[in-house]
Amino acid sequence: RLPLTLFAGLNVLESRELALETAAAFVEATAKLGMPYVFKASFDKANRSSIHSFRGPGLEKGLEILAEVKARFDVPLISDVHEPWQAKPAAEVCDVIQLPAFLARQTDLVVAMAETGAVINVKKPQFVAPHEMRHVIQKCREAGNERVILCERGSSFGYNNLVVDMLGISEMQETGFPVIFDVTHSLQRPGGRSDSAGGRRQQVTELARAGVGVGLAGLFLEAHPDPDNAKCDGPCALPLDKLAPFLAQIKALDDLVKGFDPLEID
Amino acid sequence: RLPLTLFAGLNVLESRELALETAAAFVEATAKLGMPYVFKASFDKANRSSIHSFRGPGLEKGLEILAEVKARFDVPLISDVHEPWQAKPAAEVCDVIQLPAFLARQTDLVVAMAETGAVINVKKPQFVAPHEMRHVIQKCREAGNERVILCERGSSFGYNNLVVDMLGISEMQETGFPVIFDVTHSLQRPGGRSDSAGGRRQQVTELARAGVGVGLAGLFLEAHPDPDNAKCDGPCALPLDKLAPFLAQIKALDDLVKGFDPLEID
Amino acid sequence: RLPLTLFAGLNVLESRELALETAAAFVEATAKLGMPYVFKASFDKANRSSIHSFRGPGLEKGLEILAEVKARFDVPLISDVHEPWQAKPAAEVCDVIQLPAFLARQTDLVVAMAETGAVINVKKPQFVAPHEMRHVIQKCREAGNERVILCERGSSFGYNNLVVDMLGISEMQETGFPVIFDVTHSLQRPGGRSDSAGGRRQQVTELARAGVGVGLAGLFLEAHPDPDNAKCDGPCALPLDKLAPFLAQIKALDDLVKGFDPLEID
Amino acid sequence: RLPLTLFAGLNVLESRELALETAAAFVEATAKLGMPYVFKASFDKANRSSIHSFRGPGLEKGLEILAEVKARFDVPLISDVHEPWQAKPAAEVCDVIQLPAFLARQTDLVVAMAETGAVINVKKPQFVAPHEMRHVIQKCREAGNERVILCERGSSFGYNNLVVDMLGISEMQETGFPVIFDVTHSLQRPGGRSDSAGGRRQQVTELARAGVGVGLAGLFLEAHPDPDNAKCDGPCALPLDKLAPFLAQIKALDDLVKGFDPLEID
Repeated sequence: RLPLTLFAGLNVLESRELALETAAAFVEATAKLGMPYVFKASFDKANRSSIHSFRGPGLEKGLEILAEVKARFDVPLISDVHEPWQAKPAAEVCDVIQLPAFLARQTDLVVAMAETGAVINVKKPQFVAPHEMRHVIQKCREAGNERVILCERGSSFGYNNLVVDMLGISEMQETGFPVIFDVTHSLQRPGGRSDSAGGRRQQVTELARAGVGVGLAGLFLEAHPDPDNAKCDGPCALPLDKLAPFLAQIKALDDLVKGFDPLEID
Repeated sequence: RLPLTLFAGLNVLESRELALETAAAFVEATAKLGMPYVFKASFDKANRSSIHSFRGPGLEKGLEILAEVKARFDVPLISDVHEPWQAKPAAEVCDVIQLPAFLARQTDLVVAMAETGAVINVKKPQFVAPHEMRHVIQKCREAGNERVILCERGSSFGYNNLVVDMLGISEMQETGFPVIFDVTHSLQRPGGRSDSAGGRRQQVTELARAGVGVGLAGLFLEAHPDPDNAKCDGPCALPLDKLAPFLAQIKALDDLVKGFDPLEID
Repeated sequence: RLPLTLFAGLNVLESRELALETAAAFVEATAKLGMPYVFKASFDKANRSSIHSFRGPGLEKGLEILAEVKARFDVPLISDVHEPWQAKPAAEVCDVIQLPAFLARQTDLVVAMAETGAVINVKKPQFVAPHEMRHVIQKCREAGNERVILCERGSSFGYNNLVVDMLGISEMQETGFPVIFDVTHSLQRPGGRSDSAGGRRQQVTELARAGVGVGLAGLFLEAHPDPDNAKCDGPCALPLDKLAPFLAQIKALDDLVKGFDPLEID
Repeated sequence: RLPLTLFAGLNVLESRELALETAAAFVEATAKLGMPYVFKASFDKANRSSIHSFRGPGLEKGLEILAEVKARFDVPLISDVHEPWQAKPAAEVCDVIQLPAFLARQTDLVVAMAETGAVINVKKPQFVAPHEMRHVIQKCREAGNERVILCERGSSFGYNNLVVDMLGISEMQETGFPVIFDVTHSLQRPGGRSDSAGGRRQQVTELARAGVGVGLAGLFLEAHPDPDNAKCDGPCALPLDKLAPFLAQIKALDDLVKGFDPLEID
């Protein structure tokens, strides 16, 4: 049982400066705790509610910024791809490429991603049961890639709400693949604002603790120095100035939980 | 209140022969009833559960078959597209192009489809509330296309199940856009079989009648001469030999419901 | 396939006068249509959200009013009971006694009701699957009563919302027992107002038509001459002045649907 | 932030001997950990799926056994009541009386329980949103009793499944009343077996840790020396021989979480 890895950063690459500032904050905070860390940011938000929403710098410029973060801080990178042709260039820069939840059933995208050889982080769709995740694992395997991570991010619960089924985490762990938990997207209220998703960032700590209490390979989260003015998903973002005390709780909890003897019950 | 239009045909273009046979059956049955009809078939099933599942003939060959159906039977066509580059060639052959439910949030795809000028049939995602459909309408409108159809196809209801919220139909109708009902996909049990979705085709008639009872611009359905051996979604398909009595019920019901004086309740 | 029976009246016995007025309206409207009719009203609303909510006249006074309705209009009666001791006196006046949804698992109540020999109308709890209704049927049977009606009234769908699973109706019909549909309670938004449930009475006609389209033994509904001032569940009540056109639609639809040849699909 | 209180024992009083054995095991295990403990057992299971299911010894005999447990081990008691007349005798023996989830809307029962002056443990119904719990608190308050505990036990999630919304815990905590978590009932699969609920006791530890990670006033659970032969809810019961290591984890986690400085996020 390895210590928890943090996959975290920005929702979207709003600017080079913000990326560097955010990465610096995460690198410092995780280094102090000895917590493995992967920087996350998206170069393109391809599924915003409105056509006028900020989407990011795009693939080329975005990968440049990501490469600079990697060079500057010597951290691995994770970013998401939305079309098959993006997989290869993204994997040349990123260590982990992420399959978005809404796209997790698109075979061409899965195969293109798997063929890069990169680690694939599969977001569990809001409409998919934990036990169904074996299908996407199988698709990756058949494309020659067994380096898969499964990521919980909440299930549809009526309209405009998500619920995290904590029992699904160990169901996914039974596949043998590492399971991480995207706590900030799980705080979304889909369609909760007039032109974008709402969120419950006030509850990020308690929900993260619940997940870490179950036992996770990693935690995924997005932060922002000024969530109210973030260009995407600010209602769910951890304020950057709360990062250190937040991670201290997570680290202590993970250490405790991973130190327990397993308790098998028939 | 126009009479109901039928959007129906095959799940996937298994072969040219099957397409022609199925179109012939629908054309004959709808002509007898004076029911407007649009032939539906997919050229590529891009989101099958397994990499080994049959996907179809692909764009080029598929559009050829569709064009032949159109030429032979003089019927309009509907087919679904999955990537932005497919929109233009699909719209050159098809009268209506369909935005798949899982992809309804992908802005590039929506815009590429809207820019063709074709009618866009938007499948409501299983994770989206009826009132949120205004976002995708707005995206189409901003791309210069107001020829949008909204299509109900069930909402996630726990794991491995869908439920059709009949109250959502009139909520979507309040947008002013036509609302149709995909009855056969609404019968799916997602993840219900070991490597594909299950279904409840035994219940297709009663569910279709419920939707037509509400009042619909159109009904969407998939049929097959031999559902047990269909290459995709056979568990949901209407057996082709039941088409005539099925449509007779639908037609009679639609005529009755459309003939009622509206009953406004405050 | 018998014609649809209407179980309808008031949510709660607000007064003798209102009961008589409402019964008169239903008797007249159903007589014109030749529709079998059972008058419904509750003598006690035992589960209001607030302790200050109006509960009704209580068992003794309520049964007196119900008996007067029966004598005056020669109609059968249905009313709900909440505690075992109420079953016998209620059954002495009412032809059908109703098991409330929240109480459908309370064995003592089920047995006390079944032992009266009255017809038992079981509301399907919002948290129970259609196929589980066999348990309550079995309890009635073991208490010597096979005169059971099953009543759909919506399922929990996230928080503060209900959805009617139209596929559940025929699942319940497979038990061989008659299935009716409580359309007005299915319009509730539980917890939707600050101290009581909200509702969507504007949509009562379309939802009723959906259910009748499936094929029902009966329709259950509550009405009020002035829904905005009803003492309970006004947001869901059919305005009494819409009764005639509402029932005309229901009758025409039911006649049509019951006249169809059954369409068996394997 | 007081340390977590354990409310635990048997589902149902199968026998005096089993009650004493179980209480002895809990008293010993909690004493070692300095964990406040309340013995739980039901005298009557009033809502079993089948009329033939074991229901327990009944009120009188059950309260005798409970009184003996209290006398022997000097522990407070919690038990559930199902009808108003049971409240007073139950409160004469028990320190906490419990309002069952299905009955949480029954005003007469709530009032009768509140008037005893005992602490009232309200199980949150599977069909109620966290923010709606203020209604039952208000009912208790108006009956003169503000000693209320709120208990999470899972929400309906489609058919035959429950999900625990960890975000609901702090929503309920905003009422100012203590919130506890019934972990074993949250493991139920309602209707999951042919004549009773199924369960997932294999996952009790991880789900309990998730809840304790959020921060709880108490944990509620049922155990049994031989779950496979328990007379009720064995599929959810913690095997008694796992109690000590289970509680050691809970205690360590609770101590850690309660020791964190609160982390306020706007």
